[in-house]
Amino acid sequence: GGGFVSLVGAGPGDPDLLTLGALRAMQAADVVVYDRLVSPEVMALVRNDAEKIYAGKESSRHTLPQDQINALLARLAKQGRRVVRLKGGDPFIFGRGGEEIETLMEEGIPFQVIPGITAASGCAAYAGIPLTHRDHAQSVTFVTGHLKQGGIGELDWERLARPGQTLVIYMGLQALPQLRAALIGHGCIPDTPAALIQQGTTRRQRVITGTVDSLPGLVEEAGVSAPTLVIVGGVVGLHGKLAWFQGASPGTSTP
Amino acid sequence: GGGFVSLVGAGPGDPDLLTLGALRAMQAADVVVYDRLVSPEVMALVRNDAEKIYAGKESSRHTLPQDQINALLARLAKQGRRVVRLKGGDPFIFGRGGEEIETLMEEGIPFQVIPGITAASGCAAYAGIPLTHRDHAQSVTFVTGHLKQGGIGELDWERLARPGQTLVIYMGLQALPQLRAALIGHGCIPDTPAALIQQGTTRRQRVITGTVDSLPGLVEEAGVSAPTLVIVGGVVGLHGKLAWFQGASPGTSTP
Repeated sequence: GGGFVSLVGAGPGDPDLLTLGALRAMQAADVVVYDRLVSPEVMALVRNDAEKIYAGKESSRHTLPQDQINALLARLAKQGRRVVRLKGGDPFIFGRGGEEIETLMEEGIPFQVIPGITAASGCAAYAGIPLTHRDHAQSVTFVTGHLKQGGIGELDWERLARPGQTLVIYMGLQALPQLRAALIGHGCIPDTPAALIQQGTTRRQRVITGTVDSLPGLVEEAGVSAPTLVIVGGVVGLHGKLAWFQGASPGTSTP
Repeated sequence: GGGFVSLVGAGPGDPDLLTLGALRAMQAADVVVYDRLVSPEVMALVRNDAEKIYAGKESSRHTLPQDQINALLARLAKQGRRVVRLKGGDPFIFGRGGEEIETLMEEGIPFQVIPGITAASGCAAYAGIPLTHRDHAQSVTFVTGHLKQGGIGELDWERLARPGQTLVIYMGLQALPQLRAALIGHGCIPDTPAALIQQGTTRRQRVITGTVDSLPGLVEEAGVSAPTLVIVGGVVGLHGKLAWFQGASPGTSTP
């Protein structure tokens, strides 16, 4: 039989945020190649007797280099297996999904792409922070703080520092001091509201709010760890009013 | 019993892109207040004996003004009913979800927010257009072409016209000629790839590709109608290679 690859977005963590299509693919899989950002709760929904291959990816080191992941997916499919490539969030938003299916396409392997709830949508919803709002933000921009993938140095800070928009930084924790400097250095008002959402949408969710100026200091005090998402903009000011989801207690550290 | 409101993102159209949480809320609902952008296939999954209230919203006219929708949700919940407020895409990305839960919060009505696959994620996945890609786009920005909600006049075109990023325009069909003029007028290379995705993720999906310069003309030729999403940037060039989803035949008009 012919192999097939489903490139599947696992969403931000809460298994309730899997799509029906994602769950179906996971439960029909012969083999699942997954990233570090896929939550244990989501992995628990993979078909029991599927082979599970960890492809890693932490911001500090890649367990498998990207070209080896691409080759692995092609190899597994050529064995005639139903392969699920499971990635945190959405595979086409800082997920390098495009590179993976480029290889499949070149090798003539059939595939599908099942989008996932990207971290920005999930974290914003569970933190009560609308990404757009007609009083605060007419646009929203996603960037990555991951220094190896372009990173914050190459970004157009002049535009990102302006008001009337929402800025979401994926993998922004380590880059937070540079982020603060870049924004303020390009004219962003230091008091612009900013939030850091750790393990958003899971029971371990923590939301730390402050300003562009204060956030790096607050993060150090609170002992925040990855995965985290940073949201900057006037919409963050709505969190105090609109927060509804009870994650971890404020200030609680998770093991 | 106490009423409760679930603000639910219905995703871009394909019912397979509903989340598990969205489906559960829809099947437990006493009453569903839904928008025009929620697809018939998705509405078919609402509990049969739930009351269904159409709240409208077309870009040309609002069937129910936003403040009346806000008040309606509060009133239904106060009757002790389980209310689902079902919106196309994600309620916090050009969905005015923030305004709706602000009213609920003020009235002391408990609620939850279930994010949905936003049109950009869904359409990009099904059209084979990665929104970020390390060779083409280090960031992605979502704006709306809906003239009543800020609209394209207020946007920071200088930044949006620069290369190395992806620009997604929600409800951009009517504004396409202005969009072209604004981008090119602010230095965007006229040959920058651009795509229009009509009824993305559904069997009726059509993808029309061209350039920032040519897109408005192509759209007129092809008889495109809403809902449509516009994607601008180098990543659109990958569509020819990565397209995998078979929607309607190219050029086919849908009734």
